[in-house]
Amino acid sequence: MTDPTLAQRLLDGDRRALARAITLVEDDRPEGWELVKQVYPHTGSAAVVGFTGPPGVGKSTLIGAVTKARREAGRTVGVLSIDPSSPFTHGALLGDRIRLSEHFLDPGVFIRSMANRGALGGLSEAALQAALLLDAAGRQDVFVETVGVGQAEIDIIDHADTIVLVLMPGSGDSIQALKAGVMEIPDVIVINKADHPLTDTMVREIRGVLSLANLDRSAEERVGGWRVPIIKTEAGRGEGVPELVESLEAHRAHILAGGALDERRRRNLRNEVLAIATARMRRRLEEDLGEDEEFKRLLEEVVKRRLDPASAATVLLERAPGMQRAIE
Amino acid sequence: MTDPTLAQRLLDGDRRALARAITLVEDDRPEGWELVKQVYPHTGSAAVVGFTGPPGVGKSTLIGAVTKARREAGRTVGVLSIDPSSPFTHGALLGDRIRLSEHFLDPGVFIRSMANRGALGGLSEAALQAALLLDAAGRQDVFVETVGVGQAEIDIIDHADTIVLVLMPGSGDSIQALKAGVMEIPDVIVINKADHPLTDTMVREIRGVLSLANLDRSAEERVGGWRVPIIKTEAGRGEGVPELVESLEAHRAHILAGGALDERRRRNLRNEVLAIATARMRRRLEEDLGEDEEFKRLLEEVVKRRLDPASAATVLLERAPGMQRAIE
Repeated sequence: MTDPTLAQRLLDGDRRALARAITLVEDDRPEGWELVKQVYPHTGSAAVVGFTGPPGVGKSTLIGAVTKARREAGRTVGVLSIDPSSPFTHGALLGDRIRLSEHFLDPGVFIRSMANRGALGGLSEAALQAALLLDAAGRQDVFVETVGVGQAEIDIIDHADTIVLVLMPGSGDSIQALKAGVMEIPDVIVINKADHPLTDTMVREIRGVLSLANLDRSAEERVGGWRVPIIKTEAGRGEGVPELVESLEAHRAHILAGGALDERRRRNLRNEVLAIATARMRRRLEEDLGEDEEFKRLLEEVVKRRLDPASAATVLLERAPGMQRAIE
Repeated sequence: MTDPTLAQRLLDGDRRALARAITLVEDDRPEGWELVKQVYPHTGSAAVVGFTGPPGVGKSTLIGAVTKARREAGRTVGVLSIDPSSPFTHGALLGDRIRLSEHFLDPGVFIRSMANRGALGGLSEAALQAALLLDAAGRQDVFVETVGVGQAEIDIIDHADTIVLVLMPGSGDSIQALKAGVMEIPDVIVINKADHPLTDTMVREIRGVLSLANLDRSAEERVGGWRVPIIKTEAGRGEGVPELVESLEAHRAHILAGGALDERRRRNLRNEVLAIATARMRRRLEEDLGEDEEFKRLLEEVVKRRLDPASAATVLLERAPGMQRAIE
């Protein structure tokens, strides 16, 4: 154990304790997991909102604007920004952080970005733990931002109570993905940078997709339904932000009233337990195989086309050093 | 075992045997895996090209056009089209199949679409096995098509020898994703539906991204390098298709000459072995937990915030019915 007072300080809302705790889970340290375990009974109160959408649409600016509105309403905010994997991105993210910088000195706002920890699913694991820590530290609103429209990001965002898809005029690919059903329909759709002549065409196109999915009707017309709102914003100038905040509140009221929040959280927690278990099994396997001579030999057989990949996997699982250690 | 002559008929290039074999791996039947094992020594000759990109850009039409060109050059072709998960998509895919229909009666072309088998990673497993079967059946060109730009699709496409990203004017999100480094740079970029006034702007934008990544130089200027070509096509009318085919051949010659093909395949086969092993571990875990009372109880503890998800995962792995059975 590190500092035995860390959990208590975190629960008291201490920012340095929170920063330290997130670093521990990000570094996959046992103390981090122990900490989450200790504070977990104090989680479940935060309203967790996930913001997703392609890079460049202005998600960070939008989160900055929503953060400002929530602060003005007296609420505390935590922002978790998930970096994508490539070194290319650092510039973009530095820009994002600058856009959030007006909140850096406000103790009521805690901003943290997390980097991708490789292909092992470690990032989504760590991000979910970090969201729990923000929740335990008393942040009333937790905003999780992911760049990109990929499955890895969706795995993270899926654990939010409310999912906001942010697009801008020109987001043709995302609309096609919605149309084709490749991308799940979110709870709220924002068209940012809406001061563009093609914005209204885009709104109509999205309405078309929603009406196909029967999600454009009001809640009264559909039993237990939620009408997915399409909000036009210009986040840089604060336009449309009050409407967005209102939609977020309406969605929360909706899922609280109908029991959907409990149901969603139950499903998400189940997936989280399974994802952590799977990630651990895979990590142990990878670790064990890193310098394993037998694995190298097996792989050579596969490369030489003498042994097929599936049979090689069977041999691995039979030898199962990873399988043994995975259950320690 | 099913039909003992199936492997031989497959190796002889029999289409019905091939169709049957792919169904076996798609259904995750032991005979399917056994078959891949038997024919695996006869794989490795096919040129495997992955076509990826957002829905609606015309990938199927493009593959149809490339197929036509390859047939005219006397080569046999196999096409594997990976369906995304949502029920929304069936319409789009039916359309895709119609676009490929001119090849349905040509015995030199084998077309198969595979549906998503859920979140267990089963689809990419099955798709990779199916690609091996096409290879073993003597298809000289294997084209793998995935809809969407997500990670799951990339996992499949990553196993191709050559990766083609297909965009169209309006693919703003994909270009942003390339810029931000969220999407990997492919080997060849196609802008389809190029009869659009914004096409040349788009080409310049992509050139900008490639030049940032230093991928716009010629092979002579960069040691061992490959200059990513940007090809403008109108697949419906066959325009630009000869240039695309030429690029595919040039890329193949490039990776064959420099040893990159061997290296790429070694890396891909390693990932495939690990992916199969992990998918099996996860599947066993999911199966075991489906009706498990203890798991339900654990989950209830998590939902009630008495036990954190990571500790629940630890308990699962300790009990480890899945871990035991995974090594059988």
